[in-house]
Amino acid sequence: MRILVVNPNTTASMTTLIEGAAQSVANPATAILARTSRMGPVSIEGYYDEAFAVPGLLKEIAEGEAAGADAAIIACFDDTGLDAARAMASIPVLGICEAAVATAALVAQRFSIVTTLERSIMPVKGLVHRYGMAERATVRAADIPVLSLDDPSSGSLKKLRAEIEKALEIDAAEAIVLGCAGMADLARHLQEEYGVPVIDGVSAAVKLAENLVTLGLKTSKRGAYAAPLAKPYLGILSPFAPRPLE
Amino acid sequence: MRILVVNPNTTASMTTLIEGAAQSVANPATAILARTSRMGPVSIEGYYDEAFAVPGLLKEIAEGEAAGADAAIIACFDDTGLDAARAMASIPVLGICEAAVATAALVAQRFSIVTTLERSIMPVKGLVHRYGMAERATVRAADIPVLSLDDPSSGSLKKLRAEIEKALEIDAAEAIVLGCAGMADLARHLQEEYGVPVIDGVSAAVKLAENLVTLGLKTSKRGAYAAPLAKPYLGILSPFAPRPLE
Amino acid sequence: MRILVVNPNTTASMTTLIEGAAQSVANPATAILARTSRMGPVSIEGYYDEAFAVPGLLKEIAEGEAAGADAAIIACFDDTGLDAARAMASIPVLGICEAAVATAALVAQRFSIVTTLERSIMPVKGLVHRYGMAERATVRAADIPVLSLDDPSSGSLKKLRAEIEKALEIDAAEAIVLGCAGMADLARHLQEEYGVPVIDGVSAAVKLAENLVTLGLKTSKRGAYAAPLAKPYLGILSPFAPRPLE
Amino acid sequence: MRILVVNPNTTASMTTLIEGAAQSVANPATAILARTSRMGPVSIEGYYDEAFAVPGLLKEIAEGEAAGADAAIIACFDDTGLDAARAMASIPVLGICEAAVATAALVAQRFSIVTTLERSIMPVKGLVHRYGMAERATVRAADIPVLSLDDPSSGSLKKLRAEIEKALEIDAAEAIVLGCAGMADLARHLQEEYGVPVIDGVSAAVKLAENLVTLGLKTSKRGAYAAPLAKPYLGILSPFAPRPLE
Amino acid sequence: MRILVVNPNTTASMTTLIEGAAQSVANPATAILARTSRMGPVSIEGYYDEAFAVPGLLKEIAEGEAAGADAAIIACFDDTGLDAARAMASIPVLGICEAAVATAALVAQRFSIVTTLERSIMPVKGLVHRYGMAERATVRAADIPVLSLDDPSSGSLKKLRAEIEKALEIDAAEAIVLGCAGMADLARHLQEEYGVPVIDGVSAAVKLAENLVTLGLKTSKRGAYAAPLAKPYLGILSPFAPRPLE
Amino acid sequence: MRILVVNPNTTASMTTLIEGAAQSVANPATAILARTSRMGPVSIEGYYDEAFAVPGLLKEIAEGEAAGADAAIIACFDDTGLDAARAMASIPVLGICEAAVATAALVAQRFSIVTTLERSIMPVKGLVHRYGMAERATVRAADIPVLSLDDPSSGSLKKLRAEIEKALEIDAAEAIVLGCAGMADLARHLQEEYGVPVIDGVSAAVKLAENLVTLGLKTSKRGAYAAPLAKPYLGILSPFAPRPLE
Repeated sequence: MRILVVNPNTTASMTTLIEGAAQSVANPATAILARTSRMGPVSIEGYYDEAFAVPGLLKEIAEGEAAGADAAIIACFDDTGLDAARAMASIPVLGICEAAVATAALVAQRFSIVTTLERSIMPVKGLVHRYGMAERATVRAADIPVLSLDDPSSGSLKKLRAEIEKALEIDAAEAIVLGCAGMADLARHLQEEYGVPVIDGVSAAVKLAENLVTLGLKTSKRGAYAAPLAKPYLGILSPFAPRPLE
Repeated sequence: MRILVVNPNTTASMTTLIEGAAQSVANPATAILARTSRMGPVSIEGYYDEAFAVPGLLKEIAEGEAAGADAAIIACFDDTGLDAARAMASIPVLGICEAAVATAALVAQRFSIVTTLERSIMPVKGLVHRYGMAERATVRAADIPVLSLDDPSSGSLKKLRAEIEKALEIDAAEAIVLGCAGMADLARHLQEEYGVPVIDGVSAAVKLAENLVTLGLKTSKRGAYAAPLAKPYLGILSPFAPRPLE
Repeated sequence: MRILVVNPNTTASMTTLIEGAAQSVANPATAILARTSRMGPVSIEGYYDEAFAVPGLLKEIAEGEAAGADAAIIACFDDTGLDAARAMASIPVLGICEAAVATAALVAQRFSIVTTLERSIMPVKGLVHRYGMAERATVRAADIPVLSLDDPSSGSLKKLRAEIEKALEIDAAEAIVLGCAGMADLARHLQEEYGVPVIDGVSAAVKLAENLVTLGLKTSKRGAYAAPLAKPYLGILSPFAPRPLE
Repeated sequence: MRILVVNPNTTASMTTLIEGAAQSVANPATAILARTSRMGPVSIEGYYDEAFAVPGLLKEIAEGEAAGADAAIIACFDDTGLDAARAMASIPVLGICEAAVATAALVAQRFSIVTTLERSIMPVKGLVHRYGMAERATVRAADIPVLSLDDPSSGSLKKLRAEIEKALEIDAAEAIVLGCAGMADLARHLQEEYGVPVIDGVSAAVKLAENLVTLGLKTSKRGAYAAPLAKPYLGILSPFAPRPLE
Repeated sequence: MRILVVNPNTTASMTTLIEGAAQSVANPATAILARTSRMGPVSIEGYYDEAFAVPGLLKEIAEGEAAGADAAIIACFDDTGLDAARAMASIPVLGICEAAVATAALVAQRFSIVTTLERSIMPVKGLVHRYGMAERATVRAADIPVLSLDDPSSGSLKKLRAEIEKALEIDAAEAIVLGCAGMADLARHLQEEYGVPVIDGVSAAVKLAENLVTLGLKTSKRGAYAAPLAKPYLGILSPFAPRPLE
Repeated sequence: MRILVVNPNTTASMTTLIEGAAQSVANPATAILARTSRMGPVSIEGYYDEAFAVPGLLKEIAEGEAAGADAAIIACFDDTGLDAARAMASIPVLGICEAAVATAALVAQRFSIVTTLERSIMPVKGLVHRYGMAERATVRAADIPVLSLDDPSSGSLKKLRAEIEKALEIDAAEAIVLGCAGMADLARHLQEEYGVPVIDGVSAAVKLAENLVTLGLKTSKRGAYAAPLAKPYLGILSPFAPRPLE
């Protein structure tokens, strides 16, 4: 089984981190194919960055599917481009926010999501609402830029810890969801430290992707995710239409 | 006052229709600047088309703002790219679905939205939910391709009428919202025919855009729509970043 | 175009303030007809005052419609009598709470409403819920009597500012809605002061009323707002039935 | 114990019917004081009629409280004026819609409400939502004018039966709520006929009113139902302010 | 009329307290039959205790119905086994949480529930949501073990008071619901002390049970509460099936 | 890895079917330990059967955990006893309804659940609501007794197919969830037949259980699922308390 994991931002070091988290939980028979988008912003912080990350992301998924991937993961906590990818691809596609909250819901009644920047709170709340967890999840921001996470001198880990502690105390959170792909390597350690489940979306998504492949489940092509209709595209964005459209 | 109206699909004839609807309701002192996106699909039918329409749309809004527009309208009922545009622009931005349901809510307690294709029902329901009207609005599809709307021989108008009649009878709709920018010229006629309010999103959005300009209201830059952070962009998508990013 | 603005309390000085706010945003071709109710309480603070304000309010709207008004606005943030007015009148009718939250939703994802007295919090929350904004709006009270607002010595403005600051800090509000018609003159100044959109319902309602008239939209008479049935009325409340009832 | 039951329409024959239903379920030690409003419409069918029924209703409740009533019931399924009455009175006040749905919820998971006219569906749905039963209750109208209910030749009972049968078949209703005070005498018979619980709001409200009195519970005067503030009233509506206002 | 009140934990002293509260509000013609479960935990604190309390509880209700009870009350604030009891019994069955929140809703717009242990907050919130009061009720825990309530030296009453004070100040509660059957004797005193309605579920349930009996209402056997189907049971749990199953 | 799968009804042939479905999707390194409850009803059809199935179910889980199981699955679509099991056990516990809807949500925007009997519709709707899918899932019953599913002459499969076809046509379902553990062997075949994803909860739960074990996630013991407190139990239900209680 081959699971494609696309980092939709264009920072390769973050892909490395994501790939490591994915590998560490994958089944022995699963190959993780980690890819960095080749178009768009170096980090995704808010709606504008998301918009420009989507075409490059879709290109990677289209190419990955053509190369034989069995499922795809979008490794950004905003679930950037998830609906478009599901409509485009024949293989199942997962977002890491969706995967994380679906997994958290299995081990806790209420939990808190700690994301990076204030500006991401409302987008993530929108996702949480859509995934049916609005009454169970609180969303917090630790005020840390995405790319600062792997810089030990940035103080980001300290800020993250402080926000987790607020979640435990103020929200009475029973579990913590890490709200950024760049935190994928921190979950196990924080779980030990705080004694509550700490969920990383990349790992959660790898397991759910394996599930769907094993269960023989693909995105329904009836209704919202019907395959794109064949039609002309103008300008620079047309070439990477992923496959002969129906 | 200058109101930019962007047709995010790349079909100029549809822009002409949209421009006509916009002009017909604009204040005398308002100039309607209608623009057709120069990149992306010829019609927007589902999530995949949406994704590829956004960069071209944002480019038009960025250029329109630079050229002095006071507000911008995204003339596609999926409210394609609305969040990204709000984050990017300093001027207020409106989607026609949002405008239509906000207006319908002022003249009816429950109403039905008649959109084009089955695949658009769930995306539009998602918007309706987000705009707070999930308990008041029913979403229906008339099974008509977007570009068939101006082809009298297509039978599309007949199908649209049939679906409106179902909405009145089955949903007990008190008003009808036309769920496609390509229907913008039909509202007045259908309103007379059926004796209930019929709302077109393009017209509704023009009036709301004028309102925001007159009231001196712009998108809040605090929170979800904070201005994009300056950062490198890779690949073909970088050039049209709209303005010196903060 | 003639827009009737009814102050449903019986304090003429407040009508003057409301009229000023309305005039300042109206289109050049719009005449603002400001009226003070001639029956009922001098201010509306809670459900009981509301109940006694409704008949006088309906009388003004009925007379205004007979005199040629094209739309009517109820200038009390409780949207007192809005449903009855919509059923009674042929012209569109707007409440200022409804107008304010519909407008705020176009420029902010979450916002806070600052109203006058604690006792108004639950009524306003009820309205906010009905208008579909329960998950986006927080309601606060500044503990200021309605009629104190134009008394500089009352300290009311200071209390209002303190509550706005709490909204920004605690609620992470992206915009502020002023929750009383008596605050209509404060919006622009507070917007400059705090650097976020500040919305006044009277101004918002004037623009929405103009919209409906221009768009040719009236309250649907199908369903909830069907015209009142002709029937006998006993006692003092009968004379001002607004028009030959069907 | 004295329970005031106010018919807020001005049709005395309907009060007689309501009184009978109230008497039939009251405790031996409870005196039912049935009153007909002396101001307003002969029947309440929609928001407009409601508005004009409220002052007369409040007058009856104020006088009833002054005369020693321990609790009051508003015998109209629209729960006309309930909030104002709760704010005004020291004694507890109940609406029959609220009472009926609270009671139905104790014997069925989902139920249907059959009211009179189409125009009442949305107002009743609004109440049902407020009372927390939106996901459990369906609202239907039998298309019968309120005052036709005691006219055997009107065919109203036949229409009511037909609608109950639809509720059982289409809604899978486990119980039926009769959605008009004028149906108060029909519950027992229909319950036998259909073999499911049939709830009448007048009876339900009498029992709940007795409960509150016995339990020593009165409307909280903290928050939404704080006692009205003393203030001048203009015009004909002032005289019946119920008690020395605080 | 005979009302069965079952204490589903196996602590007889708590049954005595519950019986006293029930007696104090029952109608003169009502006989309170208080029973202590003979199987299961000595107190119910969380889901696990609930599960083991249900069979003993159902046995008491089955025997009580066979002995002529007209209605049954489950005197534990978790409404332990309520659905199973409703399906099993022909007589109406009430839970004290359901009864308390239904009663509180008649005298306050928003209220707070103060229960015993932190672990009970989410179960009680689940009930509150189901009963339609999620937007009106806040749930708090005073951190007091159930069986400490009648031990004056435990400090439990002091903790309960502290939590009520937080509810009034922080939640702006208009009324207080006591969230444990073991607090049944405290309501009247606390109501006097704090000047807001304080609701005890045992008392509330007795009155509602009387209501249902007087109104001739029983649990609907159509749908969710259809009578259990006759079928073999294995092991120790079979003997007390309450009646010849259909 | 050892996954315990408990059939909470006492029919061993159904356990065999469940075990087969579980085995067919388990990882090579996973051992499926299928157990049949030794106490309670032969099938679970409604709340009453659920109540009597819980103690036997908990006993199996307690013994399974003691014997080294890494996770447990409750193989009944009512998710019978799930909360109690989560509180009791240290290992993660999954319900098959929860697993099925969480999985369906990854491949479809809206889906329908087809369960067995009418009486199960409301319990399943309650679960769906709790799992956050109330707006995305429709619940239907095929009117087939649980134990008829493996009897080819019963006509049950035909009824199930008819209900699936209604779901596709009337609900516009994009996927189908099979709402009974007894249907676990039918998913693949029906998926091929209807061309939409068909989800079986047993298979879905096995994969999610493997996920949690691999990810090192266990039920949070903070809050709702805190370990049971040590306390005396009376009567026959005490012996199988699963482990030294804290």
